[in-house]
Amino acid sequence: MALSARNHLKGEVSEVLLGTVTALITVRVGNNLIESVITKRSAEELKLRKGDKVRAVIKATEVMIEKD
Amino acid sequence: MALSARNHLKGEVSEVLLGTVTALITVRVGNNLIESVITKRSAEELKLRKGDKVRAVIKATEVMIEKD
Amino acid sequence: MALSARNHLKGEVSEVLLGTVTALITVRVGNNLIESVITKRSAEELKLRKGDKVRAVIKATEVMIEKD
Amino acid sequence: MALSARNHLKGEVSEVLLGTVTALITVRVGNNLIESVITKRSAEELKLRKGDKVRAVIKATEVMIEKD
Amino acid sequence: MALSARNHLKGEVSEVLLGTVTALITVRVGNNLIESVITKRSAEELKLRKGDKVRAVIKATEVMIEKD
Amino acid sequence: MALSARNHLKGEVSEVLLGTVTALITVRVGNNLIESVITKRSAEELKLRKGDKVRAVIKATEVMIEKD
Repeated sequence: MALSARNHLKGEVSEVLLGTVTALITVRVGNNLIESVITKRSAEELKLRKGDKVRAVIKATEVMIEKD
Repeated sequence: MALSARNHLKGEVSEVLLGTVTALITVRVGNNLIESVITKRSAEELKLRKGDKVRAVIKATEVMIEKD
Repeated sequence: MALSARNHLKGEVSEVLLGTVTALITVRVGNNLIESVITKRSAEELKLRKGDKVRAVIKATEVMIEKD
Repeated sequence: MALSARNHLKGEVSEVLLGTVTALITVRVGNNLIESVITKRSAEELKLRKGDKVRAVIKATEVMIEKD
Repeated sequence: MALSARNHLKGEVSEVLLGTVTALITVRVGNNLIESVITKRSAEELKLRKGDKVRAVIKATEVMIEKD
Repeated sequence: MALSARNHLKGEVSEVLLGTVTALITVRVGNNLIESVITKRSAEELKLRKGDKVRAVIKATEVMIEKD
């Protein structure tokens, strides 16, 4: 199974914060912490827990570039 | 100047591909290659070139989580 | 492998239009035609062709609601 | 009135879940359930209720393609 | 007809640039120029021309905040 | 520091509503009110308060066009 999204970053869940509708998932990827807002339902269905091995997935059209 | 976007990943531009309206920018961040689609005009105004030090910036609501 | 994106719609590719950076992929899902803009590279790596069985995948935060 | 978003899928609201800031709206479209996260205020202003006839609207740049 | 997207900004088209797949539409809204990337097909179906009265429409989850 | 996002609209915060995971920030830009959903953490780290001078920042690929 392959997805067109260009960016799949391997990491480990470092925090799960559940709201009513959404959830904040923090993933350590190398030296970076990547934060993701998904639905609470997805967080529950994926049984996301601290320490889980996951990938942060990002569509290329959602990535901006910043330069000094 | 601070931006609400949660994810700012430091890296180096490894490729710039210009189309008519959009451009594909590839950034090496640690062991990952991150691909970004921005406007050609932004690529030109930022004078993006291979080797530039940049940050890939991503709003948390755009990040998905994948788990085996 | 499970992805947090809530919406996975089964369909069949009805058209592939390639640009320089991006590609337009049209997918028939039931009575609807769903259009997707992805990178040309993803279209090539997935070898997308008319008639392919695919899924259109959409993060819930990207879906709006319209009511009369 | 016409909107540039390419995807307008007719369906019926099957669930409304309100949080503090956001709301999760589930819409039956043919054989699929489509989930949408919008602001709670939009859900209230549109008076979204189970059974409402609505359209799920999605910009083409937000649609990914998945293939086996 | 009402759309859940929170932001509808009235303006006038100041430029239309067509690519193969996408198009860049610039809209003057008060003192600001707002740039939009949509599909070339939408630009053609809406017959977008310089001087057209339009609205730029943006989902609230796509808006970031920057502060000094 | 320059960001590829094409749209930076100067305004003043008129409301801050905090949820558990997300926050709704309303910004007056000229005659328009622009609403933004960001993470609660970003709202707290930026110390967003009514009356703050800010910019609403929007990637061009997230802007749709509506025409009568």
